[in-house]
This record gives sequence, structure tokens and C-alpha cells, in this order.
Amino acid sequence: MSDRKLKATIVGVGMVGGTIASNLAIMNLFDELALIDVVGDMAKGKALDISQAGPVMGYDTHIVGGDSWELMKNSDIVIVTAGVPRKPGMSREELLGINYRIIQEVSKKIRELAPNSIVIVVTNPLDAMTYAVYKITGFPKNRVLGMAGVLDTARFRTFLAWDLGVSAKDISALVLGSHGDTMVPILSYTTVGGIPIEKLLPQQKLEKIVERTKRGGAEVVELLKAGSAYFAPAASVCEMVEAIVLNRKRVLPCSVLCEGEYGINGIFIGVPVVLGRNGVEKIIEFPLREDELKALQKSADATKKVQDEVNALIEGNKE
Amino acid sequence: MSDRKLKATIVGVGMVGGTIASNLAIMNLFDELALIDVVGDMAKGKALDISQAGPVMGYDTHIVGGDSWELMKNSDIVIVTAGVPRKPGMSREELLGINYRIIQEVSKKIRELAPNSIVIVVTNPLDAMTYAVYKITGFPKNRVLGMAGVLDTARFRTFLAWDLGVSAKDISALVLGSHGDTMVPILSYTTVGGIPIEKLLPQQKLEKIVERTKRGGAEVVELLKAGSAYFAPAASVCEMVEAIVLNRKRVLPCSVLCEGEYGINGIFIGVPVVLGRNGVEKIIEFPLREDELKALQKSADATKKVQDEVNALIEGNKE
Amino acid sequence: MSDRKLKATIVGVGMVGGTIASNLAIMNLFDELALIDVVGDMAKGKALDISQAGPVMGYDTHIVGGDSWELMKNSDIVIVTAGVPRKPGMSREELLGINYRIIQEVSKKIRELAPNSIVIVVTNPLDAMTYAVYKITGFPKNRVLGMAGVLDTARFRTFLAWDLGVSAKDISALVLGSHGDTMVPILSYTTVGGIPIEKLLPQQKLEKIVERTKRGGAEVVELLKAGSAYFAPAASVCEMVEAIVLNRKRVLPCSVLCEGEYGINGIFIGVPVVLGRNGVEKIIEFPLREDELKALQKSADATKKVQDEVNALIEGNKE
Amino acid sequence: MSDRKLKATIVGVGMVGGTIASNLAIMNLFDELALIDVVGDMAKGKALDISQAGPVMGYDTHIVGGDSWELMKNSDIVIVTAGVPRKPGMSREELLGINYRIIQEVSKKIRELAPNSIVIVVTNPLDAMTYAVYKITGFPKNRVLGMAGVLDTARFRTFLAWDLGVSAKDISALVLGSHGDTMVPILSYTTVGGIPIEKLLPQQKLEKIVERTKRGGAEVVELLKAGSAYFAPAASVCEMVEAIVLNRKRVLPCSVLCEGEYGINGIFIGVPVVLGRNGVEKIIEFPLREDELKALQKSADATKKVQDEVNALIEGNKE
Repeated sequence: MSDRKLKATIVGVGMVGGTIASNLAIMNLFDELALIDVVGDMAKGKALDISQAGPVMGYDTHIVGGDSWELMKNSDIVIVTAGVPRKPGMSREELLGINYRIIQEVSKKIRELAPNSIVIVVTNPLDAMTYAVYKITGFPKNRVLGMAGVLDTARFRTFLAWDLGVSAKDISALVLGSHGDTMVPILSYTTVGGIPIEKLLPQQKLEKIVERTKRGGAEVVELLKAGSAYFAPAASVCEMVEAIVLNRKRVLPCSVLCEGEYGINGIFIGVPVVLGRNGVEKIIEFPLREDELKALQKSADATKKVQDEVNALIEGNKE
Repeated sequence: MSDRKLKATIVGVGMVGGTIASNLAIMNLFDELALIDVVGDMAKGKALDISQAGPVMGYDTHIVGGDSWELMKNSDIVIVTAGVPRKPGMSREELLGINYRIIQEVSKKIRELAPNSIVIVVTNPLDAMTYAVYKITGFPKNRVLGMAGVLDTARFRTFLAWDLGVSAKDISALVLGSHGDTMVPILSYTTVGGIPIEKLLPQQKLEKIVERTKRGGAEVVELLKAGSAYFAPAASVCEMVEAIVLNRKRVLPCSVLCEGEYGINGIFIGVPVVLGRNGVEKIIEFPLREDELKALQKSADATKKVQDEVNALIEGNKE
Repeated sequence: MSDRKLKATIVGVGMVGGTIASNLAIMNLFDELALIDVVGDMAKGKALDISQAGPVMGYDTHIVGGDSWELMKNSDIVIVTAGVPRKPGMSREELLGINYRIIQEVSKKIRELAPNSIVIVVTNPLDAMTYAVYKITGFPKNRVLGMAGVLDTARFRTFLAWDLGVSAKDISALVLGSHGDTMVPILSYTTVGGIPIEKLLPQQKLEKIVERTKRGGAEVVELLKAGSAYFAPAASVCEMVEAIVLNRKRVLPCSVLCEGEYGINGIFIGVPVVLGRNGVEKIIEFPLREDELKALQKSADATKKVQDEVNALIEGNKE
Repeated sequence: MSDRKLKATIVGVGMVGGTIASNLAIMNLFDELALIDVVGDMAKGKALDISQAGPVMGYDTHIVGGDSWELMKNSDIVIVTAGVPRKPGMSREELLGINYRIIQEVSKKIRELAPNSIVIVVTNPLDAMTYAVYKITGFPKNRVLGMAGVLDTARFRTFLAWDLGVSAKDISALVLGSHGDTMVPILSYTTVGGIPIEKLLPQQKLEKIVERTKRGGAEVVELLKAGSAYFAPAASVCEMVEAIVLNRKRVLPCSVLCEGEYGINGIFIGVPVVLGRNGVEKIIEFPLREDELKALQKSADATKKVQDEVNALIEGNKE
């Protein structure tokens, strides 16, 4: 048996990052987990705490934490959650600027220390930050992807399940486009145990659920006040990681670089992809209804504007 | 905390029955499992063997086996796999007669010893044997159901996944009708990660896969020679049991009594139902395409003929 | 199948409480989880977030949150994590006073709204707060227990596993006594795959590991700075809950009322118990080495002092 | 992420082999499972059946079956269950001769087609057949091991748990020596939740349980009549496989080559080892009680005799 040591690094060990680390340990997918945060002791403390749950939960994963980039060395998977949330009074541009600088540093370190890794980005604004990682690392497009669609789909399925009084496990759905107001749930093929949802719920109900899904993240923020959602985002990231590590060829909506698919070019946006050991192994393209296609392209246009700002920041840095 | 002892009995501990017992133990759903078979020692031996896997696999379920009906007492769930397979030279009527007599005895014992149980039938011919259990136990229709659609759907999803090179986890499908040649896969809403299959595979390919699904059981029998499939059938039964015990409200195709749904009356046939703690909590009815509806009704007609033979056997016994 | 709806309530939805809720959902043990916190919206937000991870992680548990005690109604299990941690400058007595008042209110509500529940206490000072719940609810002793020994044992096993370079899964250990400096690890029967640890590690090493275990919680606090451990404590609570709900008859060290066992009377202290559907089904008493027994009794004496202070607070309240 | 395709081959797809294949699929440890049997179609049929359980049980493992040795190519793990059981009227020598010839062929194919694999042997007589694989493959000793102690320990823990009325999960035990009458349970360090068993059960009871454990396999055979135990043996093998693939450093009793440990030289016998990605990473030696050590050496002597017969068969083949 050849050596198959598997290592994941989580950059940014706040609520989302810490929960991802705990989930990955429980899933027994990696030999080693590295938790990196500017607050090194906190990362170390969480690594210790998660380790101590191991005897009870049945894992032996080696978990380390700290503020040293060296911890990332030779990672197979790097998950980037580092970044600040938008605070009251902060403009969208300010947020972009701050998170860009964080992502820039992280990306350089990934390029240097984990040059063969697959990178999953969670930092907002999601599509643009994924684009930034792609540009700065110079990694091939199959090795950089962002998490949004899995979470949006999970929220959509949750709300549908509540309304129908059935298990969300049997609801199959697909949410395309950008994370946020412009997301595009594909209603016509949302099914419940193979039954089209449009034959089970009236259009008006569906529209309300779509609206609530779009505001899914905001709804949690308004309740938590001091922070944003982390259980469902962490679970979503881990589903993507499992698909890659176990080479499951899962079909999941992820933010990836489109190069012509769906008439979109050079933009990171949520589309269905096949996830396996090579990361994004394929974008699945299929004929959308005209209104759905337009909505997706509109979503891509919105993303493009932010990407252009990222390009300007990259250019500015070069000078 | 009030007393919530949960008990399942498996009647017929051949390959399917034994594998169900092992799966249920691993799933940690019950306090007690009773394994009943005419070959009592064999049932006892499997109970012992499964118990001894417990320390390694992490369960403590109390498992007993034997040929005494008393073991069934106060079961919450009874799973009936007892019966003989069709052997070369045996006519369909002979098979029906033999299995009917077995089911008749089992049903009387269930009525007597586990009067509040939910009964899941696996014995073939499936729909007719489920009907027989329903008639002889006199149980309300929500507490008698047959396993076929979950297995057929699993096979259909397996073949589709192979052809597409993706995870079967992301394939959502629905197979209605009777177990066998007249089964009705609902192609128009079979999806892959929310994408309609008809946009991913050519019609001809799909038809071939449908044909292979219809012959799914026979294909395994031809290979095994001395026996029929048991891993996938056992897994399918356990999915239904979990839905009931955990009250998950799963939407799964099961053989249940239709009373007007889909224009079918008084016949046990595979339709989508909601499974929860009350067993069959609801039949989900939705508008089928005309050809699909006709195929389903044709499947029901075929089932009706066998049910009528069962009725004759019941009548014959009364005299 | 009779009705077996199972419900757990978590009082105090900080880091430990929230993580317990997520774990219990993943474990698929309950029909309903209620999250109660004085910060009602936060509890609601976590309930929503955990629900939305369900489609990805495979659970359908109904999860509600808020600040209303009514949410607790008819719970089978109540887990109490409410309370404040000791802050710089706060005396031990001040801490006791504050947490006592919280526990007092919680206990009264449990007595009123979940009169048949089993209560697991996590609030510190652990043994004394468990005693307070016992006194105020008036519940029989088998239905009130505190979590400490499982966590201490998990930490002890983690450190041993690291030192030996083996899986913690194969380390069997027992930590008795109070949570903290006076805890009593039973070294003579700590084994690794059935091999006595004292034959694998030198005494000096073992003593160091015992010391580190005693400071296990403090070590994490010093690293996290803004908070204390929650992953391992939550996992430990969930192991106890599973043992009770699945009636597993697990042998785990818990803080329970001793009435003569080990020469200890009327004091809540960590001893090995059998956990099943009736809660604390039995205290296991076995002959300790003289030094171990003395250490355990010394630990009980220390606990008694705090219990006496609780008694004074209870008396004071009556006046 | 570098390529980490993992493959296991199971040679001999009877009840034990088939159950191992199903378990490994459920555990999601491998990319590919190959099932090889002289009855090729049967192996193919089981591969198909197990595949079709995948959509329900949540795995996508690629599973193939047949009678072609080529299926084994580049396996990381090979599990050998091929061989015949002892039939009435068959002498011990006849059994050895028959199984030796099977093992000889299998070993040559492993050496040729899976030269870097780790081999786990299940065929009886266990220690001698493991030795035969070791000699014929010429593999280093860390890559050839036999399964017996994990199963014997599981049976011992089961019987103890029944007698004590507690979960087997909390019973830690160690069974050394050969599979069969000469096995050596280390009673002095068998513990229940860290409590020595000798303080909980009278010596006489323990002796009875030890006797029953020694006859554990025979007891199941007598009940099943047409076959021997497979659920617990398969679970035991899978625990060893998991320890290796996940590099867990589990401490488990396995049949491995002793070279001086416990005063035993050149003999395959059950002793505690550390299992990780390199297979048998270490034999753990610790001071046994004199009577235990003698019993272990006596067990080794018995094994040596059979090994000598294997040596004669190997020599005979060379001529």
C-alpha cells in the first residue's frame, strides 16, 4: 500500500471554520487537519478541543492549530473562510477591499505551500473571492471553486420540506447563479420523491419560498445578531470535500469558472458540476428555459462587475 | 422518560431476512430484534452471529432467534420475507398456492401476537402477498405495505449513475406500478442534481436502462444461480423501516392499498406514499402523463388478477 | 406501533448548547429538539441554521428555538448548560450565587413542564449544580445526573493516545471524583487494547498526563481566551444522551447521588454508573485501592462544602 | 491533490467474503472493490447486488466480480477468505492439504498482480494459512496478517456483556494465541468501563465464559448446520481494514509473525499489534503473568506443528 496521507487546511477558524474542522474529523476523511487563524491561540484551542472529542466520537485525526502558514504545507484541500462580515456603516466597496487583501495573502501562501491543492472558498462576496483565489494562485480552473449553491439548495429544500410536511431527503432541487438576490432556483425540475413540486404546491407558495431562500442567510443573521449562519454552511462545504476526497462524482452546484457554458465567459458563477478527485471534473450544461437562462446570465452580469473590481485591485497591487 | 421499548420481528431468516436483521442492528433502531424461521436453529445461529458483531460495529441490540411464534410478541414492526422462490418446473399458480399458505399462517400469528404492528411484506408475488396479509390480519390499510418500488428505484438509479458517470446519490427517480414487467418508471421527472435526465441521455439509452431495470431481479438470479438478490432488497426494506421508526415522512414508492387514487380501486400497487410513525400516512397523488397513467392502470389490472386468485384461496380456506 | 415521539430540550444555547443540538440532530435520536435561551432570537437562529444543515447531513428533526419556557413542554430529556463562566475578579462564591439563581429558575420550570424528564446538567460548578437541580425538581435520583467524567476520561484518553502513538479508541480508562483538581483517574486499570498502561508508560509520564488532564478545561480556556471548550463537552453529553435514549446500558462515569456507595453519602460526585432508559440505572461499586478510595472521598468532601453552600442558598430562598 | 485511488480485492466470495464486500462499500473506504471467486458468475452477481444497494445506503464504490485474477491488479488490500470448511469425515490433514493448494495459488497471484498490497487472511487453519501466504508471497512481515483475535475478543465481550447486563462497547478485553482451543484471554486486564472484570464476576462465571468463547465458532456452526459464522467474522476483518486504510494506529490482536516477542520465534500467532497504513506497524510486548505466558507459548507450539506441515507442503511443491 502506497503512502496516501491526506491533509486539509482550514484558513480562518471562526464559527464556520471551526465547525468545518469538527465535521471533517467526524467524517474520518483526513489524516491531518491544520487550522490557521491570525488569532493563533484560538485556532490551537479549537484544535485541542476537537481532538478531545475524538475518543467519544470515534476519530483519531491529527489536528493542529496556530497562526503559522507553515501548518498548511502539502495540503490536499484548502478551505478558505477567512474574511470579515459586512458591518453596519461599511460600504460594499470597503468590504471588498478588506476581504480582497486577506484573500490575496492567503492565495499567495497556498500557491507557495500547497501548490497541488484543491481550494474551496467560503469568503464573501463569494464568486468574486473565488475568482481572486483563481487569479492569484494561478491554479487550473478545476482546482478552485466556491461554496454557495449547496447551501442555497439546502435552505430551499428545508423550506419546501416544511411546507409539504415531508423529509427534505426526498426533495431534489437545483439553485444556480450567484449567492444572493440574483440566485436562480430551477423550479421546473424540483421534485419530491420524483414528483414535480409544481404539481404539489401552488405557484404563489413556491414564489414565497424562493424569496425566503434568497434571504436565507440574512434571516439567520437578523436572529443571531452577533454573527452569521455556520452549521449549514459548514455542512455544505463538507459535502463538497467528501465528494472530492472519496471521488464520488457528486453533481452539485458550485461557483466555478464558466468559459462559454450557458453563454457565460470568464466569470465564476454557480452552475452544476461533477465533483471528484480532480476537483471540478466537468460543468454540466443543459438547456434551460429561456427565463431561467436570462436570470442566470443576469446573475453572471452582476458577478462580473465585482470581478472587475477585483481585477482593478489586482492591477493596483502590481503597480 | 416513558417506556419506549421498540421491537421488530423478521419472519423468514434466509439471505434477505438475515441481512435485514444485521442492517437493523447496525442502524441502532430497535431494542429487540426477533428472528423467526421454520428452521429455528438457523435463526438462532444468525441471531448469535449478528450479536457477536455488535462489539465491533457498535450496537447492543438484543437479538433472539428460533422457530417459536411467541418471539414475535408485541412487535412494533413485522417484516415478512418467508416464502419460497419459483423453482424450475413450478407453475405460477403452484408458487402462489405455496406462498399463500405460508403468508396465511404468518398473518394469523401477527394478528394474534403483534396486533398493533406495522407489517412490511417482501414475499413474492409482492403485491398479492401484501394484499393477503392485509385481508387476513384485518389491519387498517396504513399498517400493511409491500417493498418493491424502493428496490426498483435503486436499481434504476444505479444503472443511470453508471451510464452518466455520476453519483447515484444525486439521481432522483420514481418507479410506480407492480414489481416486474409492468413497472412504470416516471422518466419525465427523473433528475440528476436537479437536471432532467431526458436532457442528458438519449431516449434510446433510457429505454435500454428501463428494460434492464425491469429485469433487475432476474439478472441477479441468473448470475447467482443458487438464490436471488438480498443486499439491495434488504437495504430497501431498512430504508422503509427507518422512515417509520424515526417518523421521517419519507416519500417512497411502496405497495399499498389504492382506494380511488390514480383511478385504481381496491388493489395493492406501487405508488408514492409518505412513510412515518403511522406507517403509510398518505398516498401522494399527482397528475401523470396519459401514457404513464395508462401503464400504471395496466399494471394494476395485472395485479388484480393475482389478487383475485388470493381471494379464491381465502374463500377456499373458509369453507 | 404506539406513539413514541421523543423530545429533548436544551436550556442555554451558547457554544456548548448549540453544539449539543447539532450533534443530537445528526444522531437522529429525537423527533423534536427545543432550544431555550434568554436571548430568544439567538436560540431561534441556531435552530434555523441547524435545520438547514439537515438536507445535507441527513436528518429531519424538528428543531425550535426561543426564550419561552413553554418550548420545554413534555420533554423526555432536558440538558442544562445555562450559566455564566467565572470571569476575572469574580469570586467563587459570586459565581455560585449567580449560577444557582439561574439553575433555580430552570429547575422549577423543568418540574412544572417536563415532570417525567431525565435531566443532564453541564453548568459549573458541576456537582453542586446537579445537586441543586435534584433538590429543586424533587426528581428521583435516577433522573438527575451531571456530565464531567465522560469529558475528563476523553481528555485523559486523548493525552495517553498521543503519548503512545495509538488510537484513543483502544484506550479504556475511568476518571472518578469531582470535575477539577480533585478528580481521581484509576490508573491501575487503564488499559490499551487490553494491556495495562502501567506496563507501557513510566509512572512519571503517567503523572504528567494526569496533571494535564486535571487542567484540561483550563488549558483550552487559556488558548481560546474568549470562551471555554465546547466540542468535547458537547460530544460527552451526547454520548450520555444516546446511552439513555437507546437504552444501551453504557458504563460511564457521571455525577450522581451517592447514598453509601464508596462510603459517600448524600453527595453528587463522579462514579461509574449504568446508563439506560431509566437514566442512572445503577451505581457500580467495586473495591478501589486504598489511596484511590481516599482520593475519591477527599474529592467528595470538597464537593460537600459547595453543596452545603447550595443548601444555604435554598434555605435562604425559602425565607 | 495527487491520485489516491484505493482498491481492495476479496478472494473467495462466500458468505464471509460477500459480507466483507458489503461492509467495505458501506464504510466508503475504497474507490474499487474486486470480488474474485472460482464461481465467477456468483461473484459478479454479488457485486451487482451490492452495487444496487448503494443508492439507498449512500455509497458509490465501483464493485466488480468474476473469476479472473486480473481483477486483483494493483490492489492496496487483499482479503483472502478462499478455502473449504472441514467436512464430516475429512481429516485435519486433508483439510490442510486442500486449503494449502488454494492458498498457494492465491498467494502466487497476489505476488504477481498486487505486489505492494497488504494481505489479510481469514482461511482456516488461520495461523498456518497466514504463514503460507507470508512464505509464498515473500512479502515483508508487516504486510501479511491473519484475522482471529478481533473476532475472539468480540465474542468474549458479547458473552461478558450479556452476563453483566451492560453494553459491550464498554468492555475492553484481549484474547491472545491461536484461534481455537488454545486461545488465551487475558482476564486480569479485562475491564468494564475501566473496572476490572474480576471484581465484578466470580472466577467460576469467568471460566465458563472463557470456555464458551473458545467454542464460539463451533457454537454457531452447530446452529447454522449448513455453514459457519459470517456476520461477526466479516465485521472483524473490516475493523482491521479500516485501521489500516485510515492509519488509525488501532491496537488489535492479530495473527502476525513473532520473531522473539513473548519468547516466540518464527511463528504466526495472535498478539497485540498496532495497525496503520504500513500494516502491522509494531507488535506490542508487555509482561504477561507466568501462567498466561505459558499458555501463549503452548498455543504457539501447537501452531508450529501445523506450520511445519505447511513447510513440508511447500518443499514438496518445489520438487
